[in-house]
Amino acid sequence: MQLHPSETHSLPHLVVVGGGFGGIELIKALRKAPFRITLIDRNNYHTFQPLLYQVASGGLGADAIGYPFRLIFRNQSNFRFLNASVERIEPGRRVIHTSEGLLPYDELVLATGSTTNYFGNVAIEQKAMPLKSIPQALNLRSDLLEEMEQASRCSDEKKRRSHLCFVVVGGGPTGVETAGALAEFRSNVLPHDYPELNKHEMRVVLVEASGRLLNGMSAKASANALAYLQKMGVEVMLNTAVNTYQKPMLQLSNHLQLFTQTLIWAAGVKGELIEGLPEEATKGSRFQVDSFHRVLGLEHVYAIGDAAGMNLPDAPKGHPMVAPVAVQQGRNLARNFIAGLKGHSGKAFVYRDKGSMATVGRNKAVVDLPGFSFGGFFAWLVWMFLHLMLLVGFRNRVVVFVDWMWSYFTYERALRLIVRRYNSSNAPAGVNPNQ
Amino acid sequence: MQLHPSETHSLPHLVVVGGGFGGIELIKALRKAPFRITLIDRNNYHTFQPLLYQVASGGLGADAIGYPFRLIFRNQSNFRFLNASVERIEPGRRVIHTSEGLLPYDELVLATGSTTNYFGNVAIEQKAMPLKSIPQALNLRSDLLEEMEQASRCSDEKKRRSHLCFVVVGGGPTGVETAGALAEFRSNVLPHDYPELNKHEMRVVLVEASGRLLNGMSAKASANALAYLQKMGVEVMLNTAVNTYQKPMLQLSNHLQLFTQTLIWAAGVKGELIEGLPEEATKGSRFQVDSFHRVLGLEHVYAIGDAAGMNLPDAPKGHPMVAPVAVQQGRNLARNFIAGLKGHSGKAFVYRDKGSMATVGRNKAVVDLPGFSFGGFFAWLVWMFLHLMLLVGFRNRVVVFVDWMWSYFTYERALRLIVRRYNSSNAPAGVNPNQ
Repeated sequence: MQLHPSETHSLPHLVVVGGGFGGIELIKALRKAPFRITLIDRNNYHTFQPLLYQVASGGLGADAIGYPFRLIFRNQSNFRFLNASVERIEPGRRVIHTSEGLLPYDELVLATGSTTNYFGNVAIEQKAMPLKSIPQALNLRSDLLEEMEQASRCSDEKKRRSHLCFVVVGGGPTGVETAGALAEFRSNVLPHDYPELNKHEMRVVLVEASGRLLNGMSAKASANALAYLQKMGVEVMLNTAVNTYQKPMLQLSNHLQLFTQTLIWAAGVKGELIEGLPEEATKGSRFQVDSFHRVLGLEHVYAIGDAAGMNLPDAPKGHPMVAPVAVQQGRNLARNFIAGLKGHSGKAFVYRDKGSMATVGRNKAVVDLPGFSFGGFFAWLVWMFLHLMLLVGFRNRVVVFVDWMWSYFTYERALRLIVRRYNSSNAPAGVNPNQ
Repeated sequence: MQLHPSETHSLPHLVVVGGGFGGIELIKALRKAPFRITLIDRNNYHTFQPLLYQVASGGLGADAIGYPFRLIFRNQSNFRFLNASVERIEPGRRVIHTSEGLLPYDELVLATGSTTNYFGNVAIEQKAMPLKSIPQALNLRSDLLEEMEQASRCSDEKKRRSHLCFVVVGGGPTGVETAGALAEFRSNVLPHDYPELNKHEMRVVLVEASGRLLNGMSAKASANALAYLQKMGVEVMLNTAVNTYQKPMLQLSNHLQLFTQTLIWAAGVKGELIEGLPEEATKGSRFQVDSFHRVLGLEHVYAIGDAAGMNLPDAPKGHPMVAPVAVQQGRNLARNFIAGLKGHSGKAFVYRDKGSMATVGRNKAVVDLPGFSFGGFFAWLVWMFLHLMLLVGFRNRVVVFVDWMWSYFTYERALRLIVRRYNSSNAPAGVNPNQ
């Protein structure tokens, strides 16, 4: 099967793989450009990853941070969406092999983002819970709530404590924010809704291999985050790595053993690659690109965002895997495409670091601006405002705002339905067995 | 394992099986009563079933119509929740066998509700999509959107039309409301978001075995609903039954064949029974009860709501399986329990029919009040207002209101994420294989 028979059309066919921050920014910027654009994604929606941990902790609904691509681009006439996964690229023939057939391209942009990095530890990959997608966040939410239910009917103390012990690995923003959300669940939800349980039996442990939290941020931000988390009762273990996990027994490098049913893995990501490219183009588990986003050694193939490694003096290992880099690269590449159509040469990419931020909990966040770092309530307000503005779609902004205000005044997490296990014994009767 | 060793407590242990409308109404009414109350449900949340079709059609999020039991009853000190499924009752020993162990009771209330009735047609049970629970509604939503995506990349017209043909079986409120929602999806969403598709290739068919829609309602309401649906382009087939379904081929009793990938089954429900009771207590697939909600031939066992069949002059087949009956029975049984504690005899149940309503679509609903029936825009406002008021929880009312207003002014259905297939090939990488 051949999709979109492009040879019958006159405009060049631009194929974008992946609808993350970089991909949608690029496509938006080409709104009026003379291209036929096809976005390929295995999901039919864009995921606002910075708020995944709030879906996992029951503060937000999945629909509030996911937005259908077809809705984002409904008024963009040069846009088409293909719900498929990409299997292989044939740069020689200028086609990609997808789960739905062959797709020819004139220009190809790889914006595949990143995936969880288990650093080769298969035991952990099989037992740990990652937090990179909406289904994963919903699984984690259901898992947390299941552990609470199981603990509440468990009379064996050791077993009960293993249900109530939540270990987060990785002290980056995701790990810090998840640990903070779990600590708030313990102090705000558990005492009211689980009278059978003793909140002091619930542990939240944050394990970080390096010497400080939020490594990418300022020393002040790291210190603030650590102080906030400890104030909230999170046990932070720095300079500590995970050795093995034989559920429920977790062996740490500091010779400590933890008994936990829930290991949340936020310790690292790696670029999501696609088969079919020469080795030089994919070393270091990122697509190697020049400063014009061109994948090394290939023509008409570009890469942006987490998946792109741009080896430059200011970024020898490539730029940080964060949304602002993807957004700026998407915009720059779009400008370069438009320039190219006019016969001009494009601009080399220069990353403008506008700062970074992370939230730890209620009234607690840290913000680094160039040359200026602050924390606390004001940082938390800034964090909320910026994330509301960055959300896609007015409806989602309103719903997120309502849920945030509601949680703020009630200290509640309302989104606590266990709706994951379609195939398990407690799936409701009559669920379609084909699924 | 024995849960809640009740013999160590003084207050009688009242066990309620099922947290639907009847169960939660009963428990609320016993807020101050000298009982230890345990609610058992296989889900950890109450489902507002009247709006399931809006979750399925992408108008509402699952979290907006589901509400955690522990949150509903967080301030009720005599309440405990047990997340388990009930396997068998031993009335002789006054214990129930649950997936989590034995649970003794002093008084037992069966409020198990109803489940989809396929009338023994196994082929249909395996291939059709029911709409009785939140996971089923989410599955149906994902299924509808998958069909649209598959159709949008399908060049074979016959195959494409089978993806775009949606057949709803059953002309009751659920069937009528679902067909209406699908028709609105076709007219409001498809033309904007699926430019590859021709909206005239999408069919919505409503099949009803009897001679009219909304059988429980007035002739005027039936006629209005039929007119509304036909105006919206729904093909309504009355006096028509489903014979066989060899996906995608659906054989109807009117000798018509339809090719459809999506068969939505809203043709009937039956009481959800539990093993262990004498035959006289469960005939007609409902718990047979007297007018005091006592299950026939048993002591200390009661049944309310859809699962209870009260054989009375005014209701020879038992009362209709609708929420108001369950609510009124829950209240009456609670009053009888309180009366019993004071040594008084309780009141026999008398159903007060306050009327019924169904919505077909934007500005289109039908309302039957005793001796007075009306439809159209005003009926639709009444329907919306009442359903908002009946929703559990302030947060859910606000979120539903926001989504309704948003849909009303934008003609949009925003909740369109396909997040069901954790185990399928297009599940995101790293999803915990244990699930």
